[in-house]
Amino acid sequence: MMSWQSMAGLHGYKHFIRVTDMSGKRVVIAGMGFGGLRAAKVLAEKDLELIMVDRNNYHLFQPLLYQVATAGLEQEAIAYPLRGLTRRWNGATFLLAEISGIDLEKKSVLTDSGEVPYDYLVVAAGSRTNFFGMESVAAHAFDLKRLDQAEDLRNHILLMFEEASREPDLLRRSALLTFVIVGGGPTGVEFAGALRELVVHVLLQDHPAISAAETRIILVEAADSLLVAMPTDLQQYAYRKLGSMGVEVMLESRVVGATAESVVLHGGTVIASHTLFWSAGVAAAELAGYLHGVELGSSGRVVVQPDLTIKGYPDVFVVGDMASCLDKGVPLPMMAPVASQQGDYAARAILAREQGRSLPPFRYVDKGSMATIGRSSAVAVAAGLKFRGYLAWIAWLLLHLYYLIGFRNRLVVMMNWTYAYWFHERLVRLITAKKRRAVAIDSK
Amino acid sequence: MMSWQSMAGLHGYKHFIRVTDMSGKRVVIAGMGFGGLRAAKVLAEKDLELIMVDRNNYHLFQPLLYQVATAGLEQEAIAYPLRGLTRRWNGATFLLAEISGIDLEKKSVLTDSGEVPYDYLVVAAGSRTNFFGMESVAAHAFDLKRLDQAEDLRNHILLMFEEASREPDLLRRSALLTFVIVGGGPTGVEFAGALRELVVHVLLQDHPAISAAETRIILVEAADSLLVAMPTDLQQYAYRKLGSMGVEVMLESRVVGATAESVVLHGGTVIASHTLFWSAGVAAAELAGYLHGVELGSSGRVVVQPDLTIKGYPDVFVVGDMASCLDKGVPLPMMAPVASQQGDYAARAILAREQGRSLPPFRYVDKGSMATIGRSSAVAVAAGLKFRGYLAWIAWLLLHLYYLIGFRNRLVVMMNWTYAYWFHERLVRLITAKKRRAVAIDSK
Repeated sequence: MMSWQSMAGLHGYKHFIRVTDMSGKRVVIAGMGFGGLRAAKVLAEKDLELIMVDRNNYHLFQPLLYQVATAGLEQEAIAYPLRGLTRRWNGATFLLAEISGIDLEKKSVLTDSGEVPYDYLVVAAGSRTNFFGMESVAAHAFDLKRLDQAEDLRNHILLMFEEASREPDLLRRSALLTFVIVGGGPTGVEFAGALRELVVHVLLQDHPAISAAETRIILVEAADSLLVAMPTDLQQYAYRKLGSMGVEVMLESRVVGATAESVVLHGGTVIASHTLFWSAGVAAAELAGYLHGVELGSSGRVVVQPDLTIKGYPDVFVVGDMASCLDKGVPLPMMAPVASQQGDYAARAILAREQGRSLPPFRYVDKGSMATIGRSSAVAVAAGLKFRGYLAWIAWLLLHLYYLIGFRNRLVVMMNWTYAYWFHERLVRLITAKKRRAVAIDSK
Repeated sequence: MMSWQSMAGLHGYKHFIRVTDMSGKRVVIAGMGFGGLRAAKVLAEKDLELIMVDRNNYHLFQPLLYQVATAGLEQEAIAYPLRGLTRRWNGATFLLAEISGIDLEKKSVLTDSGEVPYDYLVVAAGSRTNFFGMESVAAHAFDLKRLDQAEDLRNHILLMFEEASREPDLLRRSALLTFVIVGGGPTGVEFAGALRELVVHVLLQDHPAISAAETRIILVEAADSLLVAMPTDLQQYAYRKLGSMGVEVMLESRVVGATAESVVLHGGTVIASHTLFWSAGVAAAELAGYLHGVELGSSGRVVVQPDLTIKGYPDVFVVGDMASCLDKGVPLPMMAPVASQQGDYAARAILAREQGRSLPPFRYVDKGSMATIGRSSAVAVAAGLKFRGYLAWIAWLLLHLYYLIGFRNRLVVMMNWTYAYWFHERLVRLITAKKRRAVAIDSK
């Protein structure tokens, strides 16, 4: 046995030797979301050593997480294995690791799998949910950043209906069937619409013991309109559309606390509900705090130079949600297009630097934004034009399919969407969790 | 708010009233595997009240679990939501509950969601893995009965390669890349073949630092041949085929112990391995033990009468893996076709009983058996004929597609198989677990 082992061992190390002997310098990308992925694609096969670090072995298409949470998609459909990319790229390696710090002086990334020194670093660790210090909310609310959170939320929603369908106590029953969504941005609006459709088209058919009138979906927004970034008429369209679907929209309302069975609003109103979904705030990922002596802006985002580097560290780029990059005086929003464009810029800046050139400062090109509300209904702004309804919805579908990586994932997603559209059916409504609370049922 | 609540409450109870007022008697099916599902399909819409009880809200297609564990299929593809069936069946309801006992005298099923009285009961709770009292094996081995176990095993296998690819210690590295599979039955053979293909076609491409020679897949079988239920020449074909694929088959060997990092064989041989997969034994589900005063046969299976009822309880049928049903003196094997035929028989027996008729004793019709070994290779026995190789493999694929429930699932599975066949790619290779052990990596 010894023989092939040592042989294999040698072989094993050849790989690292080849990589570390490369003429090119080492670029480390910390975080493989939209920003990191875009940077990697630009840097691949450019005679640089590329090390992609992420705590997951896949790139997650976050914009569709809410569809996993509402049983519209299987979780595998919106994740793409990162080694499916590195295997095609000479000089690129993937490291599955949790980043615990960055030593800017030593130029090294510290991970739970050891140190990874770099020549250039692209920090793209994204964002986390911001509960603004409300511990009771943080303790009881669901949020959507990770794949497992989407699966947990799906399990929970389906479970609420299972429990309600055999719950004799009317008050508890209605609390089980009341879902509170906080945040009227795209995520909150899309989740509210998708959840309402899941309830009406699927769960009420599954549970003849439950009537539509018993179910409540409440969307709570602190501002005086939904989708604040959108033009007024689209905001109003979204508001009317959600209302007509049966979603109760509460504007100028704020959630200030929660228990496992209730949600407390500013002013004292208490809503009996076992489900609180929070999409009312994001902050830069913890990693931002590990950059010692670096200036942080609002939401803990790293203040970057016009070329997206950290002041005093021209080899360290910060992109995406983590970066506070001013555009006409205000930080750019935390959204995928910004991250992608910044990842692209950072990568091109590194390539230029290697060729002794430099790039003009980063400029964000706003290609517009969109949100889907429900079946055949969405709002979109693009190139100064406004769209709503069916056309915007089709545009939304096509764009999301386009940005998904992998032919297979596009196929699976398209299949699920077609299936849901034709049959009003969501076949991923599985409760994959093991623990469940016991409740009473009727006995003959 | 009170108003619509009470209204809804009333509405909610109407449903139960309708059901409990049905002219027909109540049939409870405990367990919705192959036996329970078949029974439900026969009993549906026959003017009987039908209550299907399962701890999961889906029917699981267990024969393909090993493909989920080897990243060939997403877990959702082999599960079908049970309410997708009950919603179409008048008088049928589903109860998500854990069964804690059966009161044969009171004719009531005890669950964590309350008691469910029955007129007829079909017990179809299946089987669990049997480690024959070897605690160290039970503690460290993976087995495949549940969906979450398949996901755990997939995560573990992928993780072993992630860790090995950055493991400097050659001995630990080879232990991480050594996979021991116990049991040369269909499950062990199919898993060994699928794992070898995952390693060769996918993981070795993903990890250029790992050479094929470093990876070992060892299939351990106590008997002197694989697939003991098959004809000798097919056994030998399977043996040769696995060998040519690079699986080390150890016949007449027994695993007697394990730690997290080793597997101990009878005779003292110790194999350094972090992965032990156990498919060497099954026993009736715990539920069999809850039937007080009922005779249990080998593997804790319930001894049934020729009509599949329990002696002295003509209204209680036991079907599938749980039932010890003698055929020419020996108990029928624990496999899906037996369960389906018994579920079908029990359902028809109940319908006959209601019409004052009775059925002749149950007779199992052996339609043959098959096992796939790898790409384009399987063995099958049907109608006294023997098949092997490509033809048997195609037959295997078509039969499994046919027995999957749901058009969508068939589509997804077919798509994954086609994709794997054409591109040698498995895009479900996601590590969805959160915890990981830290190991050292090379640093520049």
